[in-house]
Amino acid sequence: MDTVARAAPVNLRSDNVAGIAPEILAAIAAANAGSAPSYGADPITARLQDTFSELFETRCFVQPVATGTATNALALSLIAPPYGAIYCSDVGHVHDSECGAGEFYTGGAKIVPLPAEQGRLRPATLRAALRTAGIGHTGRVQPAALNLTQATERGTVYRPDELDALVAVARDYGLRVHMDGARFANAIAALGCAPADLTWRRGVDVLSFGATKNGAMGAEAVVVFGEELAGPLRFRARRAGQVFSKMRFISAQLEAYLQDGLWLRLARHANAMAARLAAGLSALPGIRLLHPVEVNEIFAAMPQPLIERLLAAGFGLYDRGGGEVRLVTAFSTTAAEIDAFVAAARRLA
Amino acid sequence: MDTVARAAPVNLRSDNVAGIAPEILAAIAAANAGSAPSYGADPITARLQDTFSELFETRCFVQPVATGTATNALALSLIAPPYGAIYCSDVGHVHDSECGAGEFYTGGAKIVPLPAEQGRLRPATLRAALRTAGIGHTGRVQPAALNLTQATERGTVYRPDELDALVAVARDYGLRVHMDGARFANAIAALGCAPADLTWRRGVDVLSFGATKNGAMGAEAVVVFGEELAGPLRFRARRAGQVFSKMRFISAQLEAYLQDGLWLRLARHANAMAARLAAGLSALPGIRLLHPVEVNEIFAAMPQPLIERLLAAGFGLYDRGGGEVRLVTAFSTTAAEIDAFVAAARRLA
Amino acid sequence: MDTVARAAPVNLRSDNVAGIAPEILAAIAAANAGSAPSYGADPITARLQDTFSELFETRCFVQPVATGTATNALALSLIAPPYGAIYCSDVGHVHDSECGAGEFYTGGAKIVPLPAEQGRLRPATLRAALRTAGIGHTGRVQPAALNLTQATERGTVYRPDELDALVAVARDYGLRVHMDGARFANAIAALGCAPADLTWRRGVDVLSFGATKNGAMGAEAVVVFGEELAGPLRFRARRAGQVFSKMRFISAQLEAYLQDGLWLRLARHANAMAARLAAGLSALPGIRLLHPVEVNEIFAAMPQPLIERLLAAGFGLYDRGGGEVRLVTAFSTTAAEIDAFVAAARRLA
Amino acid sequence: MDTVARAAPVNLRSDNVAGIAPEILAAIAAANAGSAPSYGADPITARLQDTFSELFETRCFVQPVATGTATNALALSLIAPPYGAIYCSDVGHVHDSECGAGEFYTGGAKIVPLPAEQGRLRPATLRAALRTAGIGHTGRVQPAALNLTQATERGTVYRPDELDALVAVARDYGLRVHMDGARFANAIAALGCAPADLTWRRGVDVLSFGATKNGAMGAEAVVVFGEELAGPLRFRARRAGQVFSKMRFISAQLEAYLQDGLWLRLARHANAMAARLAAGLSALPGIRLLHPVEVNEIFAAMPQPLIERLLAAGFGLYDRGGGEVRLVTAFSTTAAEIDAFVAAARRLA
Repeated sequence: MDTVARAAPVNLRSDNVAGIAPEILAAIAAANAGSAPSYGADPITARLQDTFSELFETRCFVQPVATGTATNALALSLIAPPYGAIYCSDVGHVHDSECGAGEFYTGGAKIVPLPAEQGRLRPATLRAALRTAGIGHTGRVQPAALNLTQATERGTVYRPDELDALVAVARDYGLRVHMDGARFANAIAALGCAPADLTWRRGVDVLSFGATKNGAMGAEAVVVFGEELAGPLRFRARRAGQVFSKMRFISAQLEAYLQDGLWLRLARHANAMAARLAAGLSALPGIRLLHPVEVNEIFAAMPQPLIERLLAAGFGLYDRGGGEVRLVTAFSTTAAEIDAFVAAARRLA
Repeated sequence: MDTVARAAPVNLRSDNVAGIAPEILAAIAAANAGSAPSYGADPITARLQDTFSELFETRCFVQPVATGTATNALALSLIAPPYGAIYCSDVGHVHDSECGAGEFYTGGAKIVPLPAEQGRLRPATLRAALRTAGIGHTGRVQPAALNLTQATERGTVYRPDELDALVAVARDYGLRVHMDGARFANAIAALGCAPADLTWRRGVDVLSFGATKNGAMGAEAVVVFGEELAGPLRFRARRAGQVFSKMRFISAQLEAYLQDGLWLRLARHANAMAARLAAGLSALPGIRLLHPVEVNEIFAAMPQPLIERLLAAGFGLYDRGGGEVRLVTAFSTTAAEIDAFVAAARRLA
Repeated sequence: MDTVARAAPVNLRSDNVAGIAPEILAAIAAANAGSAPSYGADPITARLQDTFSELFETRCFVQPVATGTATNALALSLIAPPYGAIYCSDVGHVHDSECGAGEFYTGGAKIVPLPAEQGRLRPATLRAALRTAGIGHTGRVQPAALNLTQATERGTVYRPDELDALVAVARDYGLRVHMDGARFANAIAALGCAPADLTWRRGVDVLSFGATKNGAMGAEAVVVFGEELAGPLRFRARRAGQVFSKMRFISAQLEAYLQDGLWLRLARHANAMAARLAAGLSALPGIRLLHPVEVNEIFAAMPQPLIERLLAAGFGLYDRGGGEVRLVTAFSTTAAEIDAFVAAARRLA
Repeated sequence: MDTVARAAPVNLRSDNVAGIAPEILAAIAAANAGSAPSYGADPITARLQDTFSELFETRCFVQPVATGTATNALALSLIAPPYGAIYCSDVGHVHDSECGAGEFYTGGAKIVPLPAEQGRLRPATLRAALRTAGIGHTGRVQPAALNLTQATERGTVYRPDELDALVAVARDYGLRVHMDGARFANAIAALGCAPADLTWRRGVDVLSFGATKNGAMGAEAVVVFGEELAGPLRFRARRAGQVFSKMRFISAQLEAYLQDGLWLRLARHANAMAARLAAGLSALPGIRLLHPVEVNEIFAAMPQPLIERLLAAGFGLYDRGGGEVRLVTAFSTTAAEIDAFVAAARRLA
């Protein structure tokens, strides 16, 4: 029995299929010593406030939460009234992948998807939508918020100047800005920016800071830049059932994630694996990359029979239909796995 | 330096201050092998459906969730329409400790607290409220659900015949029944009943099955008895940001919790520690138990100066004001800790 | 056949059973000339802003609405967040007579009833509730608003100094104040105050200004004192389906209501009829007034057989059970009707 | 001074700018005799149940409401859960003209606009959307309801066979069907169908039956076909502040509207005026009708300078931008007014 046959075929369906990074699991175990005040009054959670403030080079408020959906929905509820409109890209996670969580948490705001290119919303598209939004007309929901995903749902990133241009439009119309950073680490790793340079320095009011996809067990954070949103956030989170009684174990994940640059090491690795995969696949006949591969997601066109053979062989991928697949690398994906995947794709083509 | 001085003073403020039971932490680590489908499509979550169905001796549907507040609020949203009234005891957790989560998840149902005795709602109290509830009168919210906490927020339990009497009233008025089982294990351990005998056999429609307070890191489950609620539950949970992408780690906690009777061993221990504490304290002059100690919570009257000295000495307790305290033992509380607490209370009195 | 037998027996069940005052019906007809811009852009609605601002001696914003329930719920939605607590008396209309409208419009805030005396909430009662409300504790809904009904649901009024004392407590805890003025005219008529003296000068932030019970067909107004609530109000009203396309016909009712003091003439008459009724009934053996009769509502204890005989004879009254009735006079109630009612009560006793 | 100059220029901005039909105003006045039970317990409202049941040739339940927005939002709340998707045309009133009322009343359901042709949604469009809706996928809101506007927002109508084809798709996917009949009378008048033939016989579950645009002061009705929706409707309406205390005056409008075919006479007239206007305008150079004129709305392209000159001359029209206008005739529009408008357009071109 050869090595390839023995190993489980690599699962690239999502970065969610990966487990917990060893450092983070160790932090959970370490946090298990003794008792600790509940509901976030523990010392680890207290330290997080400083850790994030240092990381972002400004005083910010952090609410640890356990799912990305909750993080996004809480963030939106802080910046959009029930009669508000929230603009996002038409592939935005808050629009089509969260079962209406944004509508729920905001009390029924309207999420307005706008056509994106390569996953990125364009300033002109946003401006055109706002121009006809009927501001002041009581029959129309009122523009309130802009939601941007960084990295995007198509594996691309917004560069700082692109963010500036978008936020400038948002500001012209009084919108507040939310960044869905489910893959924020991958974006930072790709762009080499300071976290502040992709967020509040660009005008982002509230950030969904993801860690789960990049090695945590279940840990995200709503990060608000500015004091006045912190109070509502704490109560909205509790009311949403998002405040853990044993919060130290969520906070410990985030602490370990940020310690000694672990988050960026993990993200750089995942990005590198995606680049390796992209290089391998694009060299194969009949396979075409659909978007630039800027972080850890690959969108590719490939023959439907090949897709089916890969699935039958046990490889994990997301079949988007119409001969298109999504492949996502994680912190734990190995070069050997990538190579095995590419080899299989060559063999099964 | 003596032993008592060296050890950290015991924290009896809540069972939430305890950490993770070793078996459950080990299960999280064990679940970390390899990749797994996300959002509950993993094998551990699949097995849970059978495990719970076997435990409850009936086919049931289980939604793993991470906080008790979310569990309760999801459960209520399944059985009360927005124009509904949910009856509970006036010390009910859903009424006064969840920041309005029940109102949020149900879309604004009214939670109606009724006077309880020793934490228990009485059938006559419920019947009197329902009799004047204005059924059919459009100005009034319509009776929809009964919420019972088992064990109660005062450390007492409902016996099966007490549940029968309450549910009979509920059924007379068409109410569905939710049991908040944040300390369900403690109640089962105290009563020695089969889980079925405290739930669906008594007419409970949906159960919040708690594990966090009794040794999990953050794992609860909404258990619905009957198929028709399962569909809405899955979508409501997702929309609430309560479906974990790496759900295997929540499910693994629940699996370990139920394996080989761990949950009852842990609960029996916590209950025994509470009994030991109750015996120790009630022997002291000036201290009086306020409620029967049936599970792992003690409510006691003690001189305010004693309360303050205990707190100053570093002991964890919940000062309820007016010379009353709550003390809660956990799966991890030791007999030595209890003895040290009683000794300190004697010394500081 | 004598006169008493010929006339329809008087209906004192509610002031809602009365019709439209002739001046108001005439105003509807007059407003029917020609076309007018819709959704509140018409000249009559525009004039209302000035009329109310003059009446209240301050710049205020007025949203005409058609039901008292909508008025109250909109008002509360402006001053309480979803995680807020709204304090009211335990006989408060917003608590027990609006099918949860307040919960609906606020997105699930909790309405907290406090024991009232003669329908009036007492400052000490409010203060005691606020003291234990758990401000800052995320498990508890956060005190946000005080709701007062003027005149109260028991036919009494708050005097200016009583309002001052209540609002002082509210301000100590940062609450905003809503006055449910479904019978505001009756209170003004009873107290002889300027409208400003019972509202913003006392610290009221938003007023439900009722007209329907006092002679309109269906016209109420949310009156906000202060600019910053006007914007949200307009959109919340539209979204609630409360902005009439042909709003001129609602506004015309309000305009006629206020013209030449009609509203106070009508209210004084209703109050006088109640006083006449109270005098007549309290002279009868076996009948006892339960509350001071300060406006147009009478609460009386009378023998249950008498209640039933009055109902059987066709008189309209509200049988509250337990030998208690509510009787309400309206702008259109005549002295002859009152006398006939008293005579019947004497005869049937 | 000539006649044209003397008369107020005709207002064709909307049918909402018209007043009250004399028969309906008379009915309000007639309903003002004596007292009547409140909140819909009056005899006029009781009679309405029979009147509508007869009109629709089936037992139905009718809730009188005062605005079209409320009618639609209530209807949707009966057939879509908070996690549901409601499909409509991209010019659907529920999508873009009601400030998110549908989202509010349903508790946050998602309204999904689909591209329409001439205002009409096509079965293939609906089927394509449903095919990729992710049914059963918890990340996606679940298809629940189809909203159709009859007559459409572009002045066209759905013929019975078109409704059959759409409803067939809806049924394949388990959707319930809501018809927004703000201009239902105009559609019935245009098609010459029985009301049943455009509603429940086609599979419509709930109808917004409009009267305001066609001569009422403010009266609409939610009509549900089938008993099980009636209960929730009554409570949802009350909770929404949509149940009038003096409901007889809303019901009287509806009764008069239906009496002796008034509703169809008024609608036929409005339709005829639109046809006259369409004929007149389409004969003018530079003016082009954008959609078939099937009821009482005209969409036309005309030179922007002409639009501005008409507005400056005092004519009411809705300038949609881009050289397009909407013109709406009402029950009260006269042939002379139409002719004056056409003459002005010719003169000012």
